Amino acid sequence: MISISLENYLKKFNEIRRWTLHLCEPLQKEDYVVQPMVDVSPPKWHLGHTTWFFEQFILKKYMSGYTEFHPDFSFVFNSYYESIGERVLRIDRGNMTRPTVDEVVKYRHYVDTAMKEFLDINNNFDDQLFDLLNLGFNHEQQHQELLVTDLKYILGQNPLFPVYTSKKSGNVDDHYLEKLKFLDIDEGEYFIGYNGEDFHFDNEEGLHKVFLHKYQISDRLITNREYMEFINSGGYKDFRYWLQEGFEFINTNKIQSPLYWHLIDDEWYYYSLQGLEKINPDQPVTHISFYEADAFSKWIGMRLPTEFEWEIAARIYSPKVPLDGNFAEKEFFLPQPRKINNLQFFGDVWEWTNSSYLPYPFYKKPDDAVGEYNGKFMINQMILRGGSCATPANHIRHTYRNFFHPDKRWQFTGIRLAQHI
Amino acid sequence: MISISLENYLKKFNEIRRWTLHLCEPLQKEDYVVQPMVDVSPPKWHLGHTTWFFEQFILKKYMSGYTEFHPDFSFVFNSYYESIGERVLRIDRGNMTRPTVDEVVKYRHYVDTAMKEFLDINNNFDDQLFDLLNLGFNHEQQHQELLVTDLKYILGQNPLFPVYTSKKSGNVDDHYLEKLKFLDIDEGEYFIGYNGEDFHFDNEEGLHKVFLHKYQISDRLITNREYMEFINSGGYKDFRYWLQEGFEFINTNKIQSPLYWHLIDDEWYYYSLQGLEKINPDQPVTHISFYEADAFSKWIGMRLPTEFEWEIAARIYSPKVPLDGNFAEKEFFLPQPRKINNLQFFGDVWEWTNSSYLPYPFYKKPDDAVGEYNGKFMINQMILRGGSCATPANHIRHTYRNFFHPDKRWQFTGIRLAQHI
Amino acid sequence: MISISLENYLKKFNEIRRWTLHLCEPLQKEDYVVQPMVDVSPPKWHLGHTTWFFEQFILKKYMSGYTEFHPDFSFVFNSYYESIGERVLRIDRGNMTRPTVDEVVKYRHYVDTAMKEFLDINNNFDDQLFDLLNLGFNHEQQHQELLVTDLKYILGQNPLFPVYTSKKSGNVDDHYLEKLKFLDIDEGEYFIGYNGEDFHFDNEEGLHKVFLHKYQISDRLITNREYMEFINSGGYKDFRYWLQEGFEFINTNKIQSPLYWHLIDDEWYYYSLQGLEKINPDQPVTHISFYEADAFSKWIGMRLPTEFEWEIAARIYSPKVPLDGNFAEKEFFLPQPRKINNLQFFGDVWEWTNSSYLPYPFYKKPDDAVGEYNGKFMINQMILRGGSCATPANHIRHTYRNFFHPDKRWQFTGIRLAQHI
Amino acid sequence: MISISLENYLKKFNEIRRWTLHLCEPLQKEDYVVQPMVDVSPPKWHLGHTTWFFEQFILKKYMSGYTEFHPDFSFVFNSYYESIGERVLRIDRGNMTRPTVDEVVKYRHYVDTAMKEFLDINNNFDDQLFDLLNLGFNHEQQHQELLVTDLKYILGQNPLFPVYTSKKSGNVDDHYLEKLKFLDIDEGEYFIGYNGEDFHFDNEEGLHKVFLHKYQISDRLITNREYMEFINSGGYKDFRYWLQEGFEFINTNKIQSPLYWHLIDDEWYYYSLQGLEKINPDQPVTHISFYEADAFSKWIGMRLPTEFEWEIAARIYSPKVPLDGNFAEKEFFLPQPRKINNLQFFGDVWEWTNSSYLPYPFYKKPDDAVGEYNGKFMINQMILRGGSCATPANHIRHTYRNFFHPDKRWQFTGIRLAQHI
Repeated sequence: MISISLENYLKKFNEIRRWTLHLCEPLQKEDYVVQPMVDVSPPKWHLGHTTWFFEQFILKKYMSGYTEFHPDFSFVFNSYYESIGERVLRIDRGNMTRPTVDEVVKYRHYVDTAMKEFLDINNNFDDQLFDLLNLGFNHEQQHQELLVTDLKYILGQNPLFPVYTSKKSGNVDDHYLEKLKFLDIDEGEYFIGYNGEDFHFDNEEGLHKVFLHKYQISDRLITNREYMEFINSGGYKDFRYWLQEGFEFINTNKIQSPLYWHLIDDEWYYYSLQGLEKINPDQPVTHISFYEADAFSKWIGMRLPTEFEWEIAARIYSPKVPLDGNFAEKEFFLPQPRKINNLQFFGDVWEWTNSSYLPYPFYKKPDDAVGEYNGKFMINQMILRGGSCATPANHIRHTYRNFFHPDKRWQFTGIRLAQHI
Repeated sequence: MISISLENYLKKFNEIRRWTLHLCEPLQKEDYVVQPMVDVSPPKWHLGHTTWFFEQFILKKYMSGYTEFHPDFSFVFNSYYESIGERVLRIDRGNMTRPTVDEVVKYRHYVDTAMKEFLDINNNFDDQLFDLLNLGFNHEQQHQELLVTDLKYILGQNPLFPVYTSKKSGNVDDHYLEKLKFLDIDEGEYFIGYNGEDFHFDNEEGLHKVFLHKYQISDRLITNREYMEFINSGGYKDFRYWLQEGFEFINTNKIQSPLYWHLIDDEWYYYSLQGLEKINPDQPVTHISFYEADAFSKWIGMRLPTEFEWEIAARIYSPKVPLDGNFAEKEFFLPQPRKINNLQFFGDVWEWTNSSYLPYPFYKKPDDAVGEYNGKFMINQMILRGGSCATPANHIRHTYRNFFHPDKRWQFTGIRLAQHI
Repeated sequence: MISISLENYLKKFNEIRRWTLHLCEPLQKEDYVVQPMVDVSPPKWHLGHTTWFFEQFILKKYMSGYTEFHPDFSFVFNSYYESIGERVLRIDRGNMTRPTVDEVVKYRHYVDTAMKEFLDINNNFDDQLFDLLNLGFNHEQQHQELLVTDLKYILGQNPLFPVYTSKKSGNVDDHYLEKLKFLDIDEGEYFIGYNGEDFHFDNEEGLHKVFLHKYQISDRLITNREYMEFINSGGYKDFRYWLQEGFEFINTNKIQSPLYWHLIDDEWYYYSLQGLEKINPDQPVTHISFYEADAFSKWIGMRLPTEFEWEIAARIYSPKVPLDGNFAEKEFFLPQPRKINNLQFFGDVWEWTNSSYLPYPFYKKPDDAVGEYNGKFMINQMILRGGSCATPANHIRHTYRNFFHPDKRWQFTGIRLAQHI
Repeated sequence: MISISLENYLKKFNEIRRWTLHLCEPLQKEDYVVQPMVDVSPPKWHLGHTTWFFEQFILKKYMSGYTEFHPDFSFVFNSYYESIGERVLRIDRGNMTRPTVDEVVKYRHYVDTAMKEFLDINNNFDDQLFDLLNLGFNHEQQHQELLVTDLKYILGQNPLFPVYTSKKSGNVDDHYLEKLKFLDIDEGEYFIGYNGEDFHFDNEEGLHKVFLHKYQISDRLITNREYMEFINSGGYKDFRYWLQEGFEFINTNKIQSPLYWHLIDDEWYYYSLQGLEKINPDQPVTHISFYEADAFSKWIGMRLPTEFEWEIAARIYSPKVPLDGNFAEKEFFLPQPRKINNLQFFGDVWEWTNSSYLPYPFYKKPDDAVGEYNGKFMINQMILRGGSCATPANHIRHTYRNFFHPDKRWQFTGIRLAQHI
């Protein structure tokens, strides 16, 4: 798994760490602290937790003479690692005003300096250390995406609807929104799972064969225009389209549209990181639960793809790497209308699949703390594929498996359709 | 799907309806009424609901001149059919003291008489009616099983531990409990799903191919003895064996053993329908959640089979029909030690698989009220296979898919292990 | 406190015990078991608990050679006496199908027989035993009232609205419902609390003086007609009349009328033990929370009396004993229009006062288990006075203090107004 | 009620507004934002809400040409005034990161400037305006106290235990802690309630007579030393001392000591605004619920005084004004050992009484929004008297009635004992 030189590691480390702080630049101190729902973590916590990861799993284990920054920070910034010890309850993250943002930034600098020194003087890395470094990078990238979705939630539920960025997507003349078309995939045995030398998560391992019957998958994401038709035709009120738990969920929570949508004087607006504005009907719909994606697919007479169907279709029809798409680096943080040369498999929105998050046939949970990374979450969650407009471009892969509970809406989630023919 | 003559239908109708009442014979009036947890329905409600099913879907639609027994009973005995209209909230079933048991039994007689008349004078059944009749039979059989598990829960949480039956399993000299052995299944493409002319549920349809890698599956169920080793070795306290939500579940609910187990003077007892008694270590362990089954499998270094692995193994190693096993007709209502000539694929306990309840590739939800039978529950539940000691023998099939949320414990649920080699 | 002879005690014991069973005569077995909300106890539980009281506090302590009926019944039928030991959780009372009604009735006979024998052979009672006997009688009378309100709740939330009694109140020609008039009470020092030799509860003790300013109190209870004006004028929607917690309570629970009221085709009906029928506008309004009583009083520009104002007014204007009123013995179980010669201070409905349930100046909590009877509830509850149509006539007194939380509605509760002038 | 000149009003306005900001000086930006429990408001919200009060009730109504600072701030900073309109839900206050602290401070300056201009140019105040000004001052003082208790809670539940002030109480040589002594008060009629020309709240009005029986009240507050004896003797575990709801409260919440107490290596520490340190046994115990105060009083064989007993005793034994005591201006924010010349009726801690918060006989709720200030809270709360170490000295009076629910612990609450003799 040693794919880049140490020098490159140092460069990558610097880049990734810098990007995290870059994402925070538009924030006010106050924005760093709160947790308006349990799924959201305060930005300050993300800054500390990603730093703690390097300190806990690399510096404290591998750097001789390393002194930890503060004895209580492990308690404050551990997320869910039972093997590491006690930690602040998830629901209390938003009550921690100390350490302050400035202290957390100091913590970052302290650990970054130590990491750079460590990476500089070591030339004798074993495989496990390389794996940990790569994991640290990818871990921080995952939190970069969460940082964006969490701060969107923090700002988006504020009655003042603050603007985070004034960056607007540019010319979209070439967007391509003809009637939905479908791509064909033939029946047969296909390989699923990661097969290579680069970084990947344990949940992608276990290369294995699946048999797929002939199917079709749509050539772009579902748009706001199409989703508004679903709303206008009474889709949220007709139990026939809904899973029972989904229907209970939308009724209990009085959900009648995607998250961040507001009906003002009979027109639909949404809050994005550009502020409150009228909905662009050509953009892919986003911020919907699995339940809504599934109901939409049934309303239109189709279904969501399985994660296997998605992976094979993406490999066949969007094989080119590096992957092209509307990723975090563009800093739109808003899905864009499909361009004529892009099938939208990557970037824009995470695509809900009708596959549960379960282990691949040969999956083996790692024994150490890293084993808590993925395996213990393999229940009651659904797989999403393809990355979003908040995902760093080099974080995503054809085989990447994201997962959330079916009621989650604060991520950039969307819909691609499939059908047998 | 017309496999038996009308005369046989009448016979079958009588038999099934009689068995439901037979199961209630040991009950006191008081036992019929309560609902000690939301999953449990009062026995009285089962008697009424299964009757309502025939009245609502057959008599009111197909028998000319039929007058319904009572105008409010549809409100009282509808379970979850949105298409039929308003209904008593599930959580309020246990508050309905009226209609009384005697009135519900009258309701059964009224509907039975009408059904017999209807089956007698009709000789011109169309396919849809046959399907509905079969569905009514199988629906009632499902409620017979629920009746047993629900009344076990009602009596089992009573401090007086009432005895329901004195019927004890007979001679078990031939039981076979050598060290767990494994059956081999070769890699390849296999067909999954129902393929035939007899009754089956819509969720078994969509005959399709899956690819299975070479695997092994155990030749019997896990016993109480083996499960006690798991308990004694601290299995319930070690987070490494547990899914995160499972570990939260057992800790929040202070679960340290299967449901109905009691530690009295340092010895394990359980409540069964024979009363409170010492645990027989040779019997299959039962009344455990998916979380516990999964944790046990990880503790022992293996895993649960997928539903596909289970179905193929059962077809290959227990192909004989009619199926042999410890079913409801034996009236033990308690899993029995494995006999030398039986692999326990059928009867005894429902076997948790590590497959989520999802639609098969070509699944299509029926359009009418019957469409609410299965399809709308395909989220957040796990598949169980093989039937239990409370399942009627002719209700189960190789392809039968049962499903419950992973935290449910009041059904007769148990463990079979699998592994890749 | 020895006010009646032993022979009379035996007679009184028989009468009271018989009346409890008499109240249950219209019930079906099923009605005895359920607990549709936590405040309600199953009728079966009342039968057992009142019996347990005599067994626990008298027979087991005072009758030599007494053998308790069943070793587990103390666990099942203890209500809240911490000093007696473990008990079934209050919320689980409605899940106990065993002991059956027949067994509980047997338990009653067993204890009654022992009590009669005990009362027959003893001629040497000390004061404490007399106190306990009297407490047992009054305890059973309290449960007789709860039995009526609880079975009303059980039947009243059933969609079939069962009829409990066909007894209708007779001729009401002489009812007296002129415009509300007021009784004057002069300013001065008054004695409050029990002062005599007969039975009373510890919470009435502590005879003490209070100073009352000149006030007026209404000469009858508020009627359904007057309450409907409050509803029709938007009283439930105008926050200005409500205590904040009251306004939250009615909004959270979507309360827009008294309990048991139903608006059917724009006409108000209520459920009473006579079944579902149109509301009689001349009857006193009942089944309202303190919050509603208080809001009504503010809407009309007055207030509720304090418990002291009530006690003094009742003593002055309704001094005659035995008390006259619509009590349980009439078996209407429904408040009746005011008769021309009756100010309704006693019977009909419990009258909410604007006094919290607090100890009188010289109150001392008894040391033994009986000390748990009243003292430990003196927080967060409001005082009600005067008894209701479900109270036994000889159970009530001028000084009797009943108490419930301000959100309770299932008792026969109502409104009398007061004002300073 | 015109007791000070306009010039003095301006001076007082400046002083009070300045003190609020002074209290915030030790805070970091992050500390201003969070709401770790529903009773606590973020410091930022206190700054805005007190400002909104002047803007809403004075400037917008009385200052011609006044332009409000921001159209959304009324929505953000209204607390509970239904008559003013919609507002941020109380539970969401801690999720509002915007407006930022800097913007709120700007808002304060803007309103302060307008208020000063307004007070400067007006010389024609009517009574109502004087009343509103006085209410605004007292309202802000109440929030100054809440600011201190809320920020103590915010910092006190942080695992880093931040220090807010290094100010330590000075020489306490003269403290006076002999065995508890008692003051006698004779039986008789006494006047209760406010009677004068200065500012007071509506809930103190209704001067009226009460009759008090002869009683004794302790000459100082209960100390930490005495409270530790209660803890050590098992007071928290013995149900006999507790109101039932209190016993449930401490058991459900696992409460075994006052809030902010920590048992570290078998020694008691507490968190105060000076940081974490060993408990001073001579200080009055504080941060206890009514339930704990009541249980302590029963454990020691006495009781809490009523609010009437407290008021009369304070008037008789501590009549001198201006009141002397450990108030907010000392900036200890920590109750101090009793000094030889001080009975501790005022300052140090709010003293729980055994009186419910109910209206005085002639109480009349004001008609306008100010009417929502007190009257609508008169249910389920207990009266506290005397002010605390966080109360501004000139805010408190002999007749001042504070009120909290009996389970509240985050205020500076404590114990004084009473008894009849």
